[in-house]
Amino acid sequence: MSTLYHSPLCPLSRFIRLVLGEWGFEHEAVEERVWERRHDFLVLNPAGTVPVLVEDGLAVPGADLIVAYIEETRGQALDSPGLMPEGAARRVEVRRIADWFNRKFHEEVSGPLAHEKVMKRFMGRDQGGGSPDMISMRTARANIRYHLHYIGWLIGRRHWLAGDRISYADLAAAAHLSVCDYLGDVPWDEDEAAKLWYARIKSRPSFRLLLGERLRGVTPPVHYADLDF
Amino acid sequence: MSTLYHSPLCPLSRFIRLVLGEWGFEHEAVEERVWERRHDFLVLNPAGTVPVLVEDGLAVPGADLIVAYIEETRGQALDSPGLMPEGAARRVEVRRIADWFNRKFHEEVSGPLAHEKVMKRFMGRDQGGGSPDMISMRTARANIRYHLHYIGWLIGRRHWLAGDRISYADLAAAAHLSVCDYLGDVPWDEDEAAKLWYARIKSRPSFRLLLGERLRGVTPPVHYADLDF
Repeated sequence: MSTLYHSPLCPLSRFIRLVLGEWGFEHEAVEERVWERRHDFLVLNPAGTVPVLVEDGLAVPGADLIVAYIEETRGQALDSPGLMPEGAARRVEVRRIADWFNRKFHEEVSGPLAHEKVMKRFMGRDQGGGSPDMISMRTARANIRYHLHYIGWLIGRRHWLAGDRISYADLAAAAHLSVCDYLGDVPWDEDEAAKLWYARIKSRPSFRLLLGERLRGVTPPVHYADLDF
Repeated sequence: MSTLYHSPLCPLSRFIRLVLGEWGFEHEAVEERVWERRHDFLVLNPAGTVPVLVEDGLAVPGADLIVAYIEETRGQALDSPGLMPEGAARRVEVRRIADWFNRKFHEEVSGPLAHEKVMKRFMGRDQGGGSPDMISMRTARANIRYHLHYIGWLIGRRHWLAGDRISYADLAAAAHLSVCDYLGDVPWDEDEAAKLWYARIKSRPSFRLLLGERLRGVTPPVHYADLDF
């Protein structure tokens, strides 16, 4: 049995959980409180970050490495969900947009929001915990608007974010947005096309598990798990 | 002819220049001042970052995407320099260590040093330019020590950073260190094994071009281009 070490409101962990869901990749999901810097976890991944996938004793750390690992070990399988298209240009576009969310959006929006509103509640003072920084949160909430319009702009030109078929790009974008949505920080009214795209991806079986989870002490808004929000 | 948009002391740009050098990948290198946010460059890469490789009209943005693009389009060629080994476990290790430097070291050391000591000199006040932040620089200089020991520790167990052969991991680590070394911020005396590994990689033909370049107004220490430093 494979094991995925993750954190419930870590957007990169959510991305990989969606990826594993789409692949039907059997695994056990184990929550890791990265800020505790547990020794056995640091042996698996000296960088101390989630997600980490462990299969047959091999630890694969980080979202990009997990995607590359799955594609390289199973990409040719008949039951591949086809999340990475054929052709250099299409693959560049899928990776470019997945990267946009896994790095840029993470840095500008989902990372700060999750850190300030959630992580800092669970961390001790000596681990960097405490009250949320309001300026950081306000900046993230301002930034999310242009990312939402970027999604709307892309979807005005294609059926899915990086082309005709659903890909890693859609799963990455949706994972990051789902964290912000749990925290009530997505201004959906600002972009109808982005909202309709999210409703489409939200109704996928791979998304159900995420939508059903609740974090102790942090309640999502009513529309969060509603498929017709 | 392909074009590489880069910035001289951007460690990710240097990494890709080493990669292209090892591959003997013919290209024209064009310096991009990313902080000017030039329109035609933003069309190539909306994220506005370097490096970007353009081949046959296809823009490939970011170090990870460029490596994946080259491996996928030329990986099976007879003249491949073999920077990515066969076998899932070996590939994970190469990617893990390349990632360690391209993300963690970049965030903790080479990014802040290059930004504070170089970029801010060339940027206007309204672009975020100005005098370097001393606390940020001091933190980066403290962080570099444990990364140097990590290199020494790895090299005590293997011939190159991720295994028996030189790989993307070595090029990534060396690219980031070369930026810090240009700025005189590598305490080489702290780890003899790391220093000997760097001397080995520094003597490769792909490294020569980088070592010969000088940035106007920023002079590297005498040992910087010395192969027997």
